[in-house]
Amino acid sequence: MSIFTKIINGEIPCYKIAENDEFISFLDINPNVKGHALVVPKREENKLFDLSKDEYNSLMDFSYRVAKALEKSVSCKRIGMTVIGLEVPHVHVHLIPINEMADMQFQRKISLSKQEFEELADRISANFRD
Amino acid sequence: MSIFTKIINGEIPCYKIAENDEFISFLDINPNVKGHALVVPKREENKLFDLSKDEYNSLMDFSYRVAKALEKSVSCKRIGMTVIGLEVPHVHVHLIPINEMADMQFQRKISLSKQEFEELADRISANFRD
Repeated sequence: MSIFTKIINGEIPCYKIAENDEFISFLDINPNVKGHALVVPKREENKLFDLSKDEYNSLMDFSYRVAKALEKSVSCKRIGMTVIGLEVPHVHVHLIPINEMADMQFQRKISLSKQEFEELADRISANFRD
Repeated sequence: MSIFTKIINGEIPCYKIAENDEFISFLDINPNVKGHALVVPKREENKLFDLSKDEYNSLMDFSYRVAKALEKSVSCKRIGMTVIGLEVPHVHVHLIPINEMADMQFQRKISLSKQEFEELADRISANFRD
């Protein structure tokens, strides 16, 4: 069982942004920048392109909506999107409010307090539109 | 006019993988790894999340099909996907056959001959399914 499935099952807490029957979005706990979010399908699949086209398309659609909420919530040049997946074998879309290339390279990390995470997640969640 | 629009208009050559009315896919001329491909909407838009949801969803759908062709054409652990866009202000999805994190960081580049680019593009194109 992946760490994301444990989050989905409520065994590990997260700073949740949005959720529906198929997907969940929450803040990355080891963020590149403020507002770095993940979108995860609840059904555990290792590789993005092993998702069915329908499930993949729904994941991308959900990610668009999270990205629009992020844009409204965090100051940045744009929202970067990346799917890599070499570390956790459960599909996850990174949505990252970026200002420079280094924000996408996963080499520089920031620290946030519990309160900062909570405030961020609440703000983004409030901007998430159904 | 972006460099990608010049490619779309045929003013600059490319190693083409696939094309339809809305999108084009070709090999990145300065690749991170062998098979590093781009997918570009023909309508010039700067930011991914400024595309309409419909156009974004179509772009993602087309990218899925290119990624499946890449998987069949190039040996790798998986296909990584990323949209950054800080350099060329015309939406482009990177599809990158990856084996390690460094393949996604745009810090290490490879050189290919014209013949290698052509053979790669032909192979991926042949694996692209309508």
